[in-house]
Amino acid sequence: MTSEQTTLSQAEHTAADYYFDSYAHFGIHEEMLKDTVRTRSYQQSILGNAHLYKDKIVLDVGCGTGILSLFAAKAGAKHVYGIERSAIAEQAQQIVADNGYQSKVTIIRGKVEEVELPVEKVDIIISEWMGYFLMYESMLDTVLYARDKWLQPDGLLMPDKCTLSLVAIEDAEYRHEKIDFWDDVYGFNMQCIKGLAMQEPLVDVVDQEQVATKPCLLATFNLSSMTKEDAAFTVPFKLVASRNDYIHAFVAYFDVYFTPCHKLVWFSTSPMSRSTHWKQTVLYLQESIVICEGEVITGTLSCSPNSSNPRDLDLALTYSFKGKNGSCSASQTYRMR
Amino acid sequence: MTSEQTTLSQAEHTAADYYFDSYAHFGIHEEMLKDTVRTRSYQQSILGNAHLYKDKIVLDVGCGTGILSLFAAKAGAKHVYGIERSAIAEQAQQIVADNGYQSKVTIIRGKVEEVELPVEKVDIIISEWMGYFLMYESMLDTVLYARDKWLQPDGLLMPDKCTLSLVAIEDAEYRHEKIDFWDDVYGFNMQCIKGLAMQEPLVDVVDQEQVATKPCLLATFNLSSMTKEDAAFTVPFKLVASRNDYIHAFVAYFDVYFTPCHKLVWFSTSPMSRSTHWKQTVLYLQESIVICEGEVITGTLSCSPNSSNPRDLDLALTYSFKGKNGSCSASQTYRMR
Repeated sequence: MTSEQTTLSQAEHTAADYYFDSYAHFGIHEEMLKDTVRTRSYQQSILGNAHLYKDKIVLDVGCGTGILSLFAAKAGAKHVYGIERSAIAEQAQQIVADNGYQSKVTIIRGKVEEVELPVEKVDIIISEWMGYFLMYESMLDTVLYARDKWLQPDGLLMPDKCTLSLVAIEDAEYRHEKIDFWDDVYGFNMQCIKGLAMQEPLVDVVDQEQVATKPCLLATFNLSSMTKEDAAFTVPFKLVASRNDYIHAFVAYFDVYFTPCHKLVWFSTSPMSRSTHWKQTVLYLQESIVICEGEVITGTLSCSPNSSNPRDLDLALTYSFKGKNGSCSASQTYRMR
Repeated sequence: MTSEQTTLSQAEHTAADYYFDSYAHFGIHEEMLKDTVRTRSYQQSILGNAHLYKDKIVLDVGCGTGILSLFAAKAGAKHVYGIERSAIAEQAQQIVADNGYQSKVTIIRGKVEEVELPVEKVDIIISEWMGYFLMYESMLDTVLYARDKWLQPDGLLMPDKCTLSLVAIEDAEYRHEKIDFWDDVYGFNMQCIKGLAMQEPLVDVVDQEQVATKPCLLATFNLSSMTKEDAAFTVPFKLVASRNDYIHAFVAYFDVYFTPCHKLVWFSTSPMSRSTHWKQTVLYLQESIVICEGEVITGTLSCSPNSSNPRDLDLALTYSFKGKNGSCSASQTYRMR
């Protein structure tokens, strides 16, 4: 990289740097690239919609290895700017050159909030910013910052819409393995760790056979109009049992939409869909619920950045249930870290 | 924890702190505890040898959740001191109390190199210090420091002996998936990342069916007598093919021995044994070798801490082969980070 392109200041090494350092290693990019649900959706949204990209100025927020920038260049963009703070930017720059796109794609190493672009406005912002539970890692803030600073009034965001949904699952076996494990560890009581385990959402692939309710839409995020304050929310939910079962956990997942496409491109991280590297986010309940088909659990779910570490997410759940075979009402908090 | 027991200084947050922070999360301890090859070997070496522990002063270096300290207390130790730098020490303290061992086990939060023990000498040092490729994370240094400072002249180290071994494997499919993947990523050449991938030992479980040579013992480490300088080494090897095959990688693994036991307790992290959380360490070769049964690959393997980050390991491999169907001679370097 030339010095003009390298804008990362030599500031003190902070916790944020360690976050970005984790993206310096190629392994995380390998995992994301090999997530074909993710990468092929982006590929289709770009290469299947070359009419949207032709002769346009495109900004790729958090470009990683540069794969989305390359898709955009291949789709005929006039120029693509890829901003990446971690050291993988050096490989991205090399990859751009190795593929003959150095006149079409410029990789800029630095923080989105600090770098300068050689253009005033861009026509399209592409970004793969989503984290676990959609909001984990808070990169959405950065995309909205880029939107407000650089996107033309009639410019496009890709993706431009996300939804967050909830289901409830039967999960006796895994709960036993992940939570109750701490009750007796080689003969010792380690229940003080069980308390920690209960407070942490578990990111893992849920088998669709475990899903015992209909999905409930929690929230819709329109990237074109939302503010970063909208990423913190409290929303009601209502889960209707689709069969008689025991409920051990609630499971959150998100769907991602590229609505400007000629034919809608979207993908889901639901347990009912092919699994992605985002898996699902499982919130275990203190007590299991005995539910009959058609019975309803109502409640609210809150999400906000942790005040001491804004990359962590605080989740709060309240729920109540009155069924033929039991009733309950509870509040629980979780922290994704 | 009381303030007397908390000795971690409030120094600036360094890279070392981030290393220790990774041990503050219960998930890593869950993985280690659920590694039954590891934990049951320690359990057997302690509870199956209560005659060694009865009325002894025991030091547990890097005690984590305190499981080994509790085994030692249960085996009849007079007192056990568990030193742990990461925040999991708080749970360890609670676990000790919750299991009624607070008069027998003292958890001390801090760096082994900085804490004070209330006794001058200890009779037994137990520690689970092994990292990937045995030496990764360099916690061995800390155990040797504790040995020199606190262990009675006739005291015991558990474990007290480790060996490092090498085999060669056929691995066309996985090499294709992990290395050649970068040749064509959704139509783009990302070979500059392939170079990074080749330089990084891959930690993964190797199927024993892939092993195509007899194992070769690289080195034996006697913890009672070795110095920390012995953890950096250059050793020759000689791998004899056990069948006609193609060789894509060398695989290193280690075995761990508790020789003072009444009946030898040991475990292996070999691909021929039940897999552990250490898996194996795979070093891919630039070019594959076409080998016939009985033919020999000779070479040397060097290991030393990286000079800029001593928790990283630099490995260097030289090897040569002259066979019926081809010959080669090469040098490669790797960095475990």
